[in-house]
Amino acid sequence: MPIITLTTDFGEKDHFAGAVKGAIYSELEDIKIVDISHCVSPFHIAEAAYIIQNAYKSFPKGSIHIIGIDSELTPENKHIAVLLDGHYFLCADNGIMSLITQDLRPKKIVEINIHDRVLSDFPVLDVFVKVACHIARGGTLDVIGKEISGIKELKDFTPAVYQNQIVGSVLYIDNYGNVVTNIPKKLFEKVGLGNPFTITARTVKFKTVYAKYSDAIDFDTPSDKREEDGKKLAIWNASGFLELAIYKSNPQTVGSASTLFGLYFRDTVKIDFEP
Amino acid sequence: MPIITLTTDFGEKDHFAGAVKGAIYSELEDIKIVDISHCVSPFHIAEAAYIIQNAYKSFPKGSIHIIGIDSELTPENKHIAVLLDGHYFLCADNGIMSLITQDLRPKKIVEINIHDRVLSDFPVLDVFVKVACHIARGGTLDVIGKEISGIKELKDFTPAVYQNQIVGSVLYIDNYGNVVTNIPKKLFEKVGLGNPFTITARTVKFKTVYAKYSDAIDFDTPSDKREEDGKKLAIWNASGFLELAIYKSNPQTVGSASTLFGLYFRDTVKIDFEP
Amino acid sequence: MPIITLTTDFGEKDHFAGAVKGAIYSELEDIKIVDISHCVSPFHIAEAAYIIQNAYKSFPKGSIHIIGIDSELTPENKHIAVLLDGHYFLCADNGIMSLITQDLRPKKIVEINIHDRVLSDFPVLDVFVKVACHIARGGTLDVIGKEISGIKELKDFTPAVYQNQIVGSVLYIDNYGNVVTNIPKKLFEKVGLGNPFTITARTVKFKTVYAKYSDAIDFDTPSDKREEDGKKLAIWNASGFLELAIYKSNPQTVGSASTLFGLYFRDTVKIDFEP
Repeated sequence: MPIITLTTDFGEKDHFAGAVKGAIYSELEDIKIVDISHCVSPFHIAEAAYIIQNAYKSFPKGSIHIIGIDSELTPENKHIAVLLDGHYFLCADNGIMSLITQDLRPKKIVEINIHDRVLSDFPVLDVFVKVACHIARGGTLDVIGKEISGIKELKDFTPAVYQNQIVGSVLYIDNYGNVVTNIPKKLFEKVGLGNPFTITARTVKFKTVYAKYSDAIDFDTPSDKREEDGKKLAIWNASGFLELAIYKSNPQTVGSASTLFGLYFRDTVKIDFEP
Repeated sequence: MPIITLTTDFGEKDHFAGAVKGAIYSELEDIKIVDISHCVSPFHIAEAAYIIQNAYKSFPKGSIHIIGIDSELTPENKHIAVLLDGHYFLCADNGIMSLITQDLRPKKIVEINIHDRVLSDFPVLDVFVKVACHIARGGTLDVIGKEISGIKELKDFTPAVYQNQIVGSVLYIDNYGNVVTNIPKKLFEKVGLGNPFTITARTVKFKTVYAKYSDAIDFDTPSDKREEDGKKLAIWNASGFLELAIYKSNPQTVGSASTLFGLYFRDTVKIDFEP
Repeated sequence: MPIITLTTDFGEKDHFAGAVKGAIYSELEDIKIVDISHCVSPFHIAEAAYIIQNAYKSFPKGSIHIIGIDSELTPENKHIAVLLDGHYFLCADNGIMSLITQDLRPKKIVEINIHDRVLSDFPVLDVFVKVACHIARGGTLDVIGKEISGIKELKDFTPAVYQNQIVGSVLYIDNYGNVVTNIPKKLFEKVGLGNPFTITARTVKFKTVYAKYSDAIDFDTPSDKREEDGKKLAIWNASGFLELAIYKSNPQTVGSASTLFGLYFRDTVKIDFEP
């Protein structure tokens, strides 16, 4: 029996996520449900895309991912089911899938058309649960929708490339307050060709990108003599994106990369390579 | 095997919820446990009632709902188990069940009396887990308590009805900062008889109640020319209550209905119908 | 099949916890995963130790506890697997296990040495999941590491004892804002020998320690005439530690013991016994 995951902006307090799980278990007693996140900022499509993109690959092929962000059915927001990389995604066609499919071609996209059979005040509960359970039972996408060829595209979320320069932006602030950019390592290597570089984001600059956080620390110096906590660094994060970080930061106390560098969602981060 | 759900004010950080799940799995290896919410405001009975009331109906009949809010056993707060609408509820008799049972009669209420057999510093863990697992194994309520006829009643949580007027109040602020009132659609229709009306809450007024959020948006106007984000509206929410909302609000950034209208728990919301 | 639990500082929003669960289910379809907490303050080893210490005992013997706090592999932070009290703990050797093992001797400690077989950007996902699934399948610790005799010790987390005096400190602030100290009831009884005492923490003093919160309330006085909400009290909490509390406090509204007493992590709490 496949896994159904949930990524929503419902928050942790309201009844929404619990009600959705009850509805799934009411249809399929033996299914596994995994919460990926219910703390996406309300209606924040880019955040949701970043989270689901980095989580789904750990799940077995055939998993079904419900994305409950800005999912009310409107004339401009159809409901879609997408088969991509062996995984099923159920969401509104509000642009989120275009962020997830940047490097991958969906194998199949259908516009869900079961709405006449479902009374829907609460689309995640009413529509997506029905579709997810249908797929989990082995049902095909054709039964719940009609195939479409395109999805809504969101622009401005990929970095611009000029001669010797990449101009990206802040994609996500993580739980440690670290600043994740939209600049992937692959692009950096392709444009930079191994040349020296300077990363600039507001007033901070970096000339090295580490492979992991602790590479920025000199463990040969005794711990009471070395710069460590609060040290600023750039790394390739586990998702392959350029991240601007503070070593062992705590946003609740000493501040984080986001607050200390003054960097928030969509702020510019650029890399200049020496010719 | 039935499902056990948890609704508490334990929060997401402390060990309490994890410990309760460990205790349940220690008794019943194959049970399903679903978190409905651990983020109820501390000791906030009305919030907990709203959350559980809107979540439990999605679960299969026979589910067992542990409510860990203000659950210390005291001379005034007995522990009870209630069979209602085919579901079991375990909680303290602090008034919460009277909010859940407004329209429904419990089939059976017992005062739990296993406390002499259980050492209890932590009643959810010690008492409610024992009782829940007993019920999940198919045990009867009679074994764990003695039947009682009444429960503690909380007043002032239902709207007052005058000629051509309903005076209700704010029941809940949801994750989007939207303001849920205690005025159900059924009551509105019964009192209003289809006449024009004005909803007043502090300084905001509404003359229409939509069926869903996007009904307030004019999709015939191009999206860059129409009023949309930040638009105020009243809707019947998915739970059937009057809700005062801001379209696509984000409490963390631009503000929410609650903060923008200045409406908080128990503030007055009234509806005047034209005669 | 044993249970795998997760205690981390990943937060509830990011993809980390979801990705870890996906990776576990990818290896073991039928495993049970329980979130103990993902809301430990970033890199806060003492908080994590308090949470896991109070949660793990409720789980069945043989459970496997992944602790994802400060878990990057460095020359100073090896990865270890510890068999203690019938439970398995997987974490970095950053001192956290020394806080959990204060009263207990581990049966076996191994330094995990599978890193050459695992590409690791994200040690919880890459290394701890592998080891946890190995143990869950019945594998031995010897296959994934080499036995070591000692672990990193963290000092200063146990109270000092003088003649007629215990000097402890604040260990944890719970969801209700109550102040948990590091002074266990056992130590109090051993040093105090039943003599009268005064607990002093900043400017507040207590001369009684209750067995439970409601013991501080005089239920013989009618509820509208008695001091109740907001009453300060000291109790032995369900984990056996001295806790300084406010009866039915709500940190979001009226304040909590922590804010009202001005007590935070590591602040001093002392007990003077009369001779």
